[in-house]
Amino acid sequence: MISVGVVGATGYAGGELVRLLLGHPNVRLAGLYGRNRDNQPIETSHPHLSSSGLVIDQAIPEADAIFTALPHGVAAGMAAEIVARGSALLDIGPDFRLHNPADYPTWYKFDHPAPELLAQAVYGLPELHRREMRDAAARTPTVIGLPGCYPTATILTLAPLARAGLIGDLAVDAKGGVSGAGREPKADMLFSEVNESVKAYGLFNHRHTAEMEQELQAQGERGSLGSRDANPGVATVDFLPHLIPMTRGILTSCHVRPTRPVTQADLDALYEEAYRDEPFVQVVADPPATKHVFGSNVCRICVKVDPRSGRVLAIGVIDNLVKGAAGQAIQALNVLFGLPETTGLEQYPIAP
Amino acid sequence: MISVGVVGATGYAGGELVRLLLGHPNVRLAGLYGRNRDNQPIETSHPHLSSSGLVIDQAIPEADAIFTALPHGVAAGMAAEIVARGSALLDIGPDFRLHNPADYPTWYKFDHPAPELLAQAVYGLPELHRREMRDAAARTPTVIGLPGCYPTATILTLAPLARAGLIGDLAVDAKGGVSGAGREPKADMLFSEVNESVKAYGLFNHRHTAEMEQELQAQGERGSLGSRDANPGVATVDFLPHLIPMTRGILTSCHVRPTRPVTQADLDALYEEAYRDEPFVQVVADPPATKHVFGSNVCRICVKVDPRSGRVLAIGVIDNLVKGAAGQAIQALNVLFGLPETTGLEQYPIAP
Amino acid sequence: MISVGVVGATGYAGGELVRLLLGHPNVRLAGLYGRNRDNQPIETSHPHLSSSGLVIDQAIPEADAIFTALPHGVAAGMAAEIVARGSALLDIGPDFRLHNPADYPTWYKFDHPAPELLAQAVYGLPELHRREMRDAAARTPTVIGLPGCYPTATILTLAPLARAGLIGDLAVDAKGGVSGAGREPKADMLFSEVNESVKAYGLFNHRHTAEMEQELQAQGERGSLGSRDANPGVATVDFLPHLIPMTRGILTSCHVRPTRPVTQADLDALYEEAYRDEPFVQVVADPPATKHVFGSNVCRICVKVDPRSGRVLAIGVIDNLVKGAAGQAIQALNVLFGLPETTGLEQYPIAP
Amino acid sequence: MISVGVVGATGYAGGELVRLLLGHPNVRLAGLYGRNRDNQPIETSHPHLSSSGLVIDQAIPEADAIFTALPHGVAAGMAAEIVARGSALLDIGPDFRLHNPADYPTWYKFDHPAPELLAQAVYGLPELHRREMRDAAARTPTVIGLPGCYPTATILTLAPLARAGLIGDLAVDAKGGVSGAGREPKADMLFSEVNESVKAYGLFNHRHTAEMEQELQAQGERGSLGSRDANPGVATVDFLPHLIPMTRGILTSCHVRPTRPVTQADLDALYEEAYRDEPFVQVVADPPATKHVFGSNVCRICVKVDPRSGRVLAIGVIDNLVKGAAGQAIQALNVLFGLPETTGLEQYPIAP
Repeated sequence: MISVGVVGATGYAGGELVRLLLGHPNVRLAGLYGRNRDNQPIETSHPHLSSSGLVIDQAIPEADAIFTALPHGVAAGMAAEIVARGSALLDIGPDFRLHNPADYPTWYKFDHPAPELLAQAVYGLPELHRREMRDAAARTPTVIGLPGCYPTATILTLAPLARAGLIGDLAVDAKGGVSGAGREPKADMLFSEVNESVKAYGLFNHRHTAEMEQELQAQGERGSLGSRDANPGVATVDFLPHLIPMTRGILTSCHVRPTRPVTQADLDALYEEAYRDEPFVQVVADPPATKHVFGSNVCRICVKVDPRSGRVLAIGVIDNLVKGAAGQAIQALNVLFGLPETTGLEQYPIAP
Repeated sequence: MISVGVVGATGYAGGELVRLLLGHPNVRLAGLYGRNRDNQPIETSHPHLSSSGLVIDQAIPEADAIFTALPHGVAAGMAAEIVARGSALLDIGPDFRLHNPADYPTWYKFDHPAPELLAQAVYGLPELHRREMRDAAARTPTVIGLPGCYPTATILTLAPLARAGLIGDLAVDAKGGVSGAGREPKADMLFSEVNESVKAYGLFNHRHTAEMEQELQAQGERGSLGSRDANPGVATVDFLPHLIPMTRGILTSCHVRPTRPVTQADLDALYEEAYRDEPFVQVVADPPATKHVFGSNVCRICVKVDPRSGRVLAIGVIDNLVKGAAGQAIQALNVLFGLPETTGLEQYPIAP
Repeated sequence: MISVGVVGATGYAGGELVRLLLGHPNVRLAGLYGRNRDNQPIETSHPHLSSSGLVIDQAIPEADAIFTALPHGVAAGMAAEIVARGSALLDIGPDFRLHNPADYPTWYKFDHPAPELLAQAVYGLPELHRREMRDAAARTPTVIGLPGCYPTATILTLAPLARAGLIGDLAVDAKGGVSGAGREPKADMLFSEVNESVKAYGLFNHRHTAEMEQELQAQGERGSLGSRDANPGVATVDFLPHLIPMTRGILTSCHVRPTRPVTQADLDALYEEAYRDEPFVQVVADPPATKHVFGSNVCRICVKVDPRSGRVLAIGVIDNLVKGAAGQAIQALNVLFGLPETTGLEQYPIAP
Repeated sequence: MISVGVVGATGYAGGELVRLLLGHPNVRLAGLYGRNRDNQPIETSHPHLSSSGLVIDQAIPEADAIFTALPHGVAAGMAAEIVARGSALLDIGPDFRLHNPADYPTWYKFDHPAPELLAQAVYGLPELHRREMRDAAARTPTVIGLPGCYPTATILTLAPLARAGLIGDLAVDAKGGVSGAGREPKADMLFSEVNESVKAYGLFNHRHTAEMEQELQAQGERGSLGSRDANPGVATVDFLPHLIPMTRGILTSCHVRPTRPVTQADLDALYEEAYRDEPFVQVVADPPATKHVFGSNVCRICVKVDPRSGRVLAIGVIDNLVKGAAGQAIQALNVLFGLPETTGLEQYPIAP
């Protein structure tokens, strides 16, 4: 059994992580941490989990692996203490996602307090970085910066195009459920404000943009064209998220003007090759709905070329709290500890 | 008093039209038509309007103006009869929107049965075609093809950029409420399917694409650059609508790579000039929510340039049943009959 | 023109009041008050009303009538100042609803600071107290305690039964939209908590219970049976509200075991007589939906006797922000100032 | 492994059953039946289950157990054929719930075609009829009539009160999600109709009333008072369901005037004793939300006495597609085949 602790267990991502860990056959929950909680029954934070009998405390658990689900900047401050005890650190927050320390003051408005740990961190998207993650597991400290929810959907949706050097111009238009905004009471997240409405937010400055640029550029360098300039559209990603009246789910619509003409058969082959062995990526023929993946660790992708204009549309959906947060974290744990990646994550989506 | 009739009064657009006409001070409702209805009380179709005491019948009303809110192809077949009686025809459906008869078999899969009427029809978006609409009122027959809901939002949002020849590359990513899909019982419009989900639909073939291309190209020709080729991005509009879990409202996000560098001040001036005298277009500084226009005839637009990439985002919101259908129809009626355009349309939006 | 001021203009009820007052032909808005607001444009609080050009300030307006829409206890503290200037006071909050000062510490946990004003206050439900309201308008000070949202729906739904002494046993089971909980950011009113969920709240201690008991008992005393004991079911009303995932609307289901057998014809006659001249009460044959009254000042009621058990069901729906708050306040204003009660309130409901 | 078949796999209950069976460790799916389906991939009906690779066919599967999830009257017609092959029949529909054949024409408007099978059927609520279910498993044919969704929640919520002879007067006011109405396209189940609305339906004639009366009366007979007349309130249950804008979940609010005074301690003891060993019934101190049980087989119950009036409120919540349909069916399967009842049903609820 792998002993694991969850630091930041009272929020939505933390709660989802606990729910999934409770069903993981190789995991023992060593402890849940919440700020200023003193042996508090879990139902105070998560009524749906009351029958687990778990409690939330304010001591950082001793464990083989620690998940952190915290506001940005907080995990970075705790990281040294956690890895010093020999725990692998899997951060669901953004503190170990960006390789360049200078990106933190730019996008997150804080100076990274642990650049030496950041230098060792791996971007924890197994579909792209499985090998680096395994390498990280073999060394000390092990630090995984788990991807954000919008980047998970968008990078998986675009990676095959990026590797093929096909992204000429790009607009990423995403739609996200409200749970992504977290659990702090904010007036504009009240039901009365969100219901029966849609709005764009984070124009030109959403923090997830940095991750997408980092990863899509890197895919281009790894790709068949071998050059950073192969994908001019990803140099600065035009990313626009929207808040829509639902709780869970992200849909990302990637509008691509390809660098060269492509056929539907080209696209089908590209995605088939990229994802045929991936247990959590499903390439589908019809535009997917977020409801097709609700509650599961699946990312569904549909990619089509417009015969009239030659443009390409690549659409991806995930459950932001599972593949976009807690499920992905467990998938990463499985990679680190040599388990089949699907362990504890076999649930089918729930519909309707 | 202007006598008006509504043909197709049982659907959502028809119901909204009746609601608004009941509050119009210069209108007398001459009759409501519904297929196979025989003096049926209005509450059978629209329980919220029961106290009006109106009935729905199956005779086409005699009136100064007839609104048609019908499935595509149906109004075109009735048009000759309506105009022969001297009624002005205002079609909320698509049958008189596209100037080129050949576009009907391409986009709507029917051959237009009244091309000679189509040739006289005016695209009824007052903000762009007020003068042609007034001209149409002065001749016989008077036929107005009222814009679709997505085109209304998108064309108003982009027209100033198109006239300035600024649209280099363009992705129009729209989000629409379910009422736009009409009232026919369809399995995929059931609450259980739509709630807590989002999906794209109509990839590459949504019929509203044709209107957007027609009108945005025309704006380019009218524009300062005076050339059809000024806006290469609108030759074939990359339009992708999404169904989101709300009833009313459309938000259109227009991702534009401009043909030349622009500043925020340029954009502000462009939109200020275009819309300062328009009673129903509000240019705002912050990204608008559809809830800001719910129940009103207002279109709110926000346009921003990304200082990092130079790309332009233009975002517009409307209530699809008001400015996108019934309200716009009444605005057109006001234009045709020489009334102030806001007559009967002064309602503020309802929130929350 | 009647000059009116709104104290507490930044909340949901205040915003709705402003929206409706903007359309009232006999009203001049003298000022809007919000705590710590200093000439703040209205869009800061109510983006949908931005085109009104109104501002919110922190001086109590001088006006013929002042509406207060404030947390409980606050209006009571300001009332003396307001009436001293000669303004009629119409309180949308609860501070002047309960005739017995002792009810305030019991239900609202504060001692009423102005019992002498309370003694002069009239419960502002025109359908039951029109005459007392007119009398109040003729004297100084004029203080109207406007009914709560649940009581409005429930009292109108049950009054004819109460007057007839028919309420033997009673369970009032209500369902309310989230806007009734106000605009303060509370974690349990976040979209993610409310969406796709329903729960009961306020078990045995919801403050609106006191109003219902007061008014239903009074109706019994006025009724044909002339006795407080005619309706044993209303001595202590069994009231249970539920929070459901919608923004506006209240539906109250009143389960009545009648004190004596009744027929459907009895019930129909009772309600027809009670409400035939009421412009805002519609007695309907089929169970109403809250959507049938959305955005309007209408209360729809359906009452049925179960032929199998003899029990009576009386169901009522309102829009909690209109007939349950702002619309009712304007209706009261119209009563006080001798205008037709429907002035400014003629809007039909909006659907879908 | 138990081989099972699902007849009626294309609806919501059928889809949920397949989803849960896919995760059941002791079950082999022998076949899925859908009318007029010919080897159709499951994603045609249930896109979220596409990766299962299952197909839907129109041959009734050979299996140890057959689940039927069909419109009323259909399973009764197929039952003889199914049991003749030796399959245990577990009907999720209503055809084997009511012991008295005469109740079918009364409540369901059909004459039961297999009264001899009905006579052998057991009402499959394990918490009340575990022993009879085991007995049924030991004989041939084995026919289980699985409870309806509203009855499951209501009967579990009231059974301890009924057995104690405490139900003097009773109003059952239930709120249900839209998935309970099934998947047939009906105009009044469209998103635009249901969203932002609530209405009562099935006044005095909802079919689930018959089950509640049957079972609550029977509990009274089994109870400490040993008499059918102990609970006068359940002779004819006053049951009123409401449609609310959510997909899954039922909340039942049972308003009880007790036959004799009770204290909170009495109630706590009664429910503790009734349910302490039940794995799927959780008695909680605070009013539960349907979101606390979403996706799980749990029924949460809260029971309180009003110190002011002496009335009792008993509130229960379930997920209508799990404990109210598919989960309960699997729980019954586990009972019949001697497995721990929680097998395949251990999932925690999903929130938010």
